[in-house]
Amino acid sequence: MQCVELLDAHPGVSLVRVLGRAAAGQRFSDVVPGSGVDLEVAAGTDVGACDVVMAALPHTVAASRARGWLEAGVVVIDLSADFRIRNAATWERAYGIKHPDGELCEQAVYALPELARADLPTADLIAMPGCYPTASLLATVPAVRAALVDPDVIIDAKSGVSGAGRSPSLTAHFAEVNESVSAYAVEGHRHKSEIAQELDATAGTAVQVTFVPHLVPMTRGILATAYLRPRATVTVHQMVALYQEFCDGHPCLRYSPGSPATKSVASTNIAAVNVSWQDGVAVVTVAIDNLVRGAAGQAVQALNLRFGLDEVAGLPLRATWP
Amino acid sequence: MQCVELLDAHPGVSLVRVLGRAAAGQRFSDVVPGSGVDLEVAAGTDVGACDVVMAALPHTVAASRARGWLEAGVVVIDLSADFRIRNAATWERAYGIKHPDGELCEQAVYALPELARADLPTADLIAMPGCYPTASLLATVPAVRAALVDPDVIIDAKSGVSGAGRSPSLTAHFAEVNESVSAYAVEGHRHKSEIAQELDATAGTAVQVTFVPHLVPMTRGILATAYLRPRATVTVHQMVALYQEFCDGHPCLRYSPGSPATKSVASTNIAAVNVSWQDGVAVVTVAIDNLVRGAAGQAVQALNLRFGLDEVAGLPLRATWP
Amino acid sequence: MQCVELLDAHPGVSLVRVLGRAAAGQRFSDVVPGSGVDLEVAAGTDVGACDVVMAALPHTVAASRARGWLEAGVVVIDLSADFRIRNAATWERAYGIKHPDGELCEQAVYALPELARADLPTADLIAMPGCYPTASLLATVPAVRAALVDPDVIIDAKSGVSGAGRSPSLTAHFAEVNESVSAYAVEGHRHKSEIAQELDATAGTAVQVTFVPHLVPMTRGILATAYLRPRATVTVHQMVALYQEFCDGHPCLRYSPGSPATKSVASTNIAAVNVSWQDGVAVVTVAIDNLVRGAAGQAVQALNLRFGLDEVAGLPLRATWP
Amino acid sequence: MQCVELLDAHPGVSLVRVLGRAAAGQRFSDVVPGSGVDLEVAAGTDVGACDVVMAALPHTVAASRARGWLEAGVVVIDLSADFRIRNAATWERAYGIKHPDGELCEQAVYALPELARADLPTADLIAMPGCYPTASLLATVPAVRAALVDPDVIIDAKSGVSGAGRSPSLTAHFAEVNESVSAYAVEGHRHKSEIAQELDATAGTAVQVTFVPHLVPMTRGILATAYLRPRATVTVHQMVALYQEFCDGHPCLRYSPGSPATKSVASTNIAAVNVSWQDGVAVVTVAIDNLVRGAAGQAVQALNLRFGLDEVAGLPLRATWP
Repeated sequence: MQCVELLDAHPGVSLVRVLGRAAAGQRFSDVVPGSGVDLEVAAGTDVGACDVVMAALPHTVAASRARGWLEAGVVVIDLSADFRIRNAATWERAYGIKHPDGELCEQAVYALPELARADLPTADLIAMPGCYPTASLLATVPAVRAALVDPDVIIDAKSGVSGAGRSPSLTAHFAEVNESVSAYAVEGHRHKSEIAQELDATAGTAVQVTFVPHLVPMTRGILATAYLRPRATVTVHQMVALYQEFCDGHPCLRYSPGSPATKSVASTNIAAVNVSWQDGVAVVTVAIDNLVRGAAGQAVQALNLRFGLDEVAGLPLRATWP
Repeated sequence: MQCVELLDAHPGVSLVRVLGRAAAGQRFSDVVPGSGVDLEVAAGTDVGACDVVMAALPHTVAASRARGWLEAGVVVIDLSADFRIRNAATWERAYGIKHPDGELCEQAVYALPELARADLPTADLIAMPGCYPTASLLATVPAVRAALVDPDVIIDAKSGVSGAGRSPSLTAHFAEVNESVSAYAVEGHRHKSEIAQELDATAGTAVQVTFVPHLVPMTRGILATAYLRPRATVTVHQMVALYQEFCDGHPCLRYSPGSPATKSVASTNIAAVNVSWQDGVAVVTVAIDNLVRGAAGQAVQALNLRFGLDEVAGLPLRATWP
Repeated sequence: MQCVELLDAHPGVSLVRVLGRAAAGQRFSDVVPGSGVDLEVAAGTDVGACDVVMAALPHTVAASRARGWLEAGVVVIDLSADFRIRNAATWERAYGIKHPDGELCEQAVYALPELARADLPTADLIAMPGCYPTASLLATVPAVRAALVDPDVIIDAKSGVSGAGRSPSLTAHFAEVNESVSAYAVEGHRHKSEIAQELDATAGTAVQVTFVPHLVPMTRGILATAYLRPRATVTVHQMVALYQEFCDGHPCLRYSPGSPATKSVASTNIAAVNVSWQDGVAVVTVAIDNLVRGAAGQAVQALNLRFGLDEVAGLPLRATWP
Repeated sequence: MQCVELLDAHPGVSLVRVLGRAAAGQRFSDVVPGSGVDLEVAAGTDVGACDVVMAALPHTVAASRARGWLEAGVVVIDLSADFRIRNAATWERAYGIKHPDGELCEQAVYALPELARADLPTADLIAMPGCYPTASLLATVPAVRAALVDPDVIIDAKSGVSGAGRSPSLTAHFAEVNESVSAYAVEGHRHKSEIAQELDATAGTAVQVTFVPHLVPMTRGILATAYLRPRATVTVHQMVALYQEFCDGHPCLRYSPGSPATKSVASTNIAAVNVSWQDGVAVVTVAIDNLVRGAAGQAVQALNLRFGLDEVAGLPLRATWP
């Protein structure tokens, strides 16, 4: 939904078709309250004449369609998990089903924009990171890449309920969720394999990742709190300088002098980053809006980089406050 | 407030006087909506003829009064931080002011009831743990005491907003707090010294504690997520058995088969505990109601143990659900 | 759920059996987090040897079972809408289906306890009011009965989301409901027929009722705001005195000097009532907890009156604050 | 805050200065998290060389400055209540203090944009309506103006907490407000005089207004539910057609086929309007975002009309969903 909205408002994009099963035949603005998009949602999977498909589909659906789209010369930006793991066998273990087109996995570019900047202009199959990995990797990659910390990271993540999608379930039932905080997938969440894959590649060695997601009674936002153990001679100043420089080099990152609240990035494509130091442990916090930076906005950012548009074209950068 | 309510409803306690400055002269039930307590709040500090004082006062106030109360033969149960740290110099560093009666600090019993059970019956100056330390210590003490884990613990805690008290502030302002999650005191929270003191004493050696509190948009509840590194031969079964046994031995603990939501203990004096295992790291989660188990309820539990009453007398044990 | 919890904790009730379809075979405390009830939920509809059945079932199920229970000498307290309307044809219009046992409708006592006090001790089929009618009738019946106002009332009601039950739906989906308020059933809600039936009977004439329910982003609570037009010579003092006297005469009512917040009655069986006056219009506000006073608690109150127990036995009267 | 943000992003406006007392000397983006405005907040009251001042000041401050600004040739758009009431004596009764410049009151244009469209292009002193009157008048003016209803309206309004401003208070304290709904100012709210003034002028006769505001646990949004009594021959079709036509004629109004949720207009300048019919009573609901349509956004809309810009220039029209 967020995706359609952003593309429709994008100055450099022409939204030609919206496909959908459940809402087929209805005007998009009748399905999503307050939407500005008056297109009728079409059934089926015919993407028509277009340059790019943004796919936000259940697991395996995009994977079984992607080859056809690519052969028709269409760039595929996939928001599902189908192409996030380069090794199909690893994917199959994490998701517990057979991958419909395992060969394609290796071709996909894992598109955390700040890290995939070099590869995106020529990428045709673009896999968008999950919401948790987006925040988690921005918190850990700089230090791991610079080898300032031990290859052993703990990430405690907190997410709003919209991450669960729009299908009604007890997990997203107001009376169960409100006035409560809880951890889940404590023994291992699917998103962990993405985080580990990228950190391993960054470090050039195996990185131990401990990742625990939590559900927080709010609609939007993810806060990742990463606990990193700096190597012996590393100082807080080095760490702060590293992250500050990282943020300064990218328009959708913001170094925050204090640990950021998710509200300070609400409805934006900004990831706000802070490094603090507690008795020798580096605590890195990253706040994002899970539906924008954690999904649709980041996909538009990747699209911009793919097609040589301004990186922030069509992207909201000012927070809704309060 | 919660304290007055619990004492008033307690079958073995007679509530003789409620003192308060701001509300002096008003009926308690006019100050706290929905209260069942019709006593008039009295000004001043004369506790009258009683067996026990429950003090919930700003820093240093109880510390400057306690000696007088004790000399009058009154048991003091203090909910402030004044007597939580045995070493007055450490206290003064953490709180940034001179302790009014440093000598008393060593006499106080730090009363996490499950751990102080033996000392409570003869204690006259009883220091109640903070809300964060309550959850954090229940999550870590069993494993540290049994030496099953490295003396290096990371605790990521999430609290509802009521922990900030009833004085209006931007930190508790609805529009700032709602729909947002944030870390605070990332470089070190006052409660950390309590946690470290107790873990050091438990381990008989220095334990490195990393503790980061977070603010969650809900009124009540604390969830502590502790990350512990088991020693080489320790198995998940040993860890689970240890915590399960710990919980089984105490009426205000409950071992939860899955990681507990704070809502499952809302308005109760129960701490719900779970141990999970993620690729060799033990993740212990503890959920409490910060105003009951994290404050007033636990103080009543300590009172019960001090005076030989049933440990759960007057304590709510069923959660408000949903 | 609330019902089982209250009955289990009730000093004068022995909970012999819990029946349920979805949860059959599980322990109740495994289905409802934080519950204190360790009974196994039984399948089927055999109520066994008991004095009273509390039925919280989907529409028409209790209606088709009630006759059997009554013939077995069991008192039936029904929390569904099945017996709230004395006229089966009216019921069928409101609910759009055939009533399974229309003859029984006339035998049922509509059990708003303060109004049905005289009939309850001999009632065998007891129909509990809906949550909205409970608040709405307490707000309007005193003035209508005393003929102090025109027979034309407007009731604007606001409810928390738990009123929608525990079945997941878009209406109770966190991300849809949170940070939003909306009216629904604007052209007429089923509960309106109950309100009209009781007001007509009270007035001895037809009362025009306009009733609009609203959904508010909170779990529990209903606030009914009733707009009443006092007859020519009626004064604010008369109105206030009338409601104050009404409240004073019943242990589960409380006259509130200011308009009550729902939080002031959270988790209690109290209805808090206020009458205010705005340029000649009487504004009566009533706050209840929809799951206690609006459902399970009120049913226990009716049970107490039916069996000659203390009216407030087993009922929470102190609010959870904050 | 919202005002500064909108003006800064406005394609036809150049934001030259931000004045403020508490934040003087700080960069605006350091005061408002997530802001995109990097101007330093200036102290004092020198508005410099500009075409228009947008004043969001405490009562009476703008009133005492306005004459000077006007004499300097600056258009004044005032978001406070200072110039909303044309009769200074009425203003003084409602606000309980002397008006600093009562003569100016008559010159001000009360700028609900859809109703003041004709007067705005030549207005120099523009008084923006309060948030409640905005929703209330859009709900009632069309029917009153067309004389389709009795001159006696009941408006039950529900507001999010941000309406109380950013100053900490118990009324906006998270733990007091969350999980609670309450009415306030039941005997008469200040905003009522604005509503009455405009309805009287519209009707050409005295209209009885009953207005009760409620506080709802959410940050943004107002829903006004108006109860109108149609004259004898008026039909639901006439009423619906009237409001539909009214909405169609203005770009910041949207006729909603069902009663609108506030979330459907979150963060936009849209007012969503619905007319429903319940047994002969017309129920009109209007949903707005109190901080955009109820304040800053509407002020920008008035600015656009004053200076001949596109009415919706710089205004968000797509809702943040979910």
